[in-house]
Amino acid sequence: MITHAERMQKKKEVVDRKIAAAQVERGVLVVNTGNGKGKSTAAFGVVARALGHGMRVAVVQFVKGRSDGGEEAFFRTQPGVAWHVGGAGFTWETQDKERDAAAAWLAWKVACEHLRDPGVGLVVLDEMTYAFKYGWLDVAAVLAVLRCRPAEQHVIVTGRAAPQALRDAADTVSDIAMEKHAFQAGVKAMPGLEW
Amino acid sequence: MITHAERMQKKKEVVDRKIAAAQVERGVLVVNTGNGKGKSTAAFGVVARALGHGMRVAVVQFVKGRSDGGEEAFFRTQPGVAWHVGGAGFTWETQDKERDAAAAWLAWKVACEHLRDPGVGLVVLDEMTYAFKYGWLDVAAVLAVLRCRPAEQHVIVTGRAAPQALRDAADTVSDIAMEKHAFQAGVKAMPGLEW
Repeated sequence: MITHAERMQKKKEVVDRKIAAAQVERGVLVVNTGNGKGKSTAAFGVVARALGHGMRVAVVQFVKGRSDGGEEAFFRTQPGVAWHVGGAGFTWETQDKERDAAAAWLAWKVACEHLRDPGVGLVVLDEMTYAFKYGWLDVAAVLAVLRCRPAEQHVIVTGRAAPQALRDAADTVSDIAMEKHAFQAGVKAMPGLEW
Repeated sequence: MITHAERMQKKKEVVDRKIAAAQVERGVLVVNTGNGKGKSTAAFGVVARALGHGMRVAVVQFVKGRSDGGEEAFFRTQPGVAWHVGGAGFTWETQDKERDAAAAWLAWKVACEHLRDPGVGLVVLDEMTYAFKYGWLDVAAVLAVLRCRPAEQHVIVTGRAAPQALRDAADTVSDIAMEKHAFQAGVKAMPGLEW
């Protein structure tokens, strides 16, 4: 009979072999997509992680629903964080396509500055996928810039319905499905949890 | 022909109606599960969000792989955060079932203190699902305590393979699928991104 210790020893060997095989060190392109909760917050969690390693971080938000979000209030006070809000709001709030497109373009110009700065270890392009969905930005042009970024720089793109070209270019893609949501049961978007 | 502004106006009405219908205010139980990246980091992002609203936060980690993680280094320096590391390590590292079970139990005792403190707005039970998987903790007993927590307190449980009883009890469940991972392409776990 195989004991617990033997089973775990075998598992440890498998894990150790995989770790030994992964030796490339470079910046990683991550995409957090899907309809579930956690795409942006997972990126913000990595912001905290990167700051814990003394890295400089830039966050560019392409779509902005409210100006009193907790993460913005918190991270703006942290040294090493550049936080930019580029979007004019959700497009069904503004109902002005030209203004939204111009706002996305301005956000992208800010992002480009960070994407050529080797001193920035992590760039978060929050809710950027909407800019592709609504045709505000061209995915091929964005990918060309991402490929030219400093070799050690990590980038996280968040938002629903990431285009296939972006998924193909990414190193890591997480697809977050919503199994259920408190909102469906009539619970209001709660401060400190949802915003 | 329907214009962009008309289409967006209609979408705005639908969204506004849904928001108007969700009026319950209370603490929410969130479960971040699945095999993809972002379960813990999404919880850590919510930690930042909650701190931005001036809330006190407790994080209890049930499984601990390394002691030099960026999120721990970062959040330990933040006022309002209690950070506890309860686990002894991944079980295939320790190969000692009794020690792991005892460590999980100690972590749970610490969690219980926060789960009865109305001054704590958010409790993160990080990687807690492994404690159920390996039989270190009983899910029914844990759910009983979660149901008795202060009414305004949010709880986030993370980890692979959340048991069905936990999913049923949760208000919000996000299932994070791994579409691909840089590790598969031989990229090392990078500081500031993976730990």
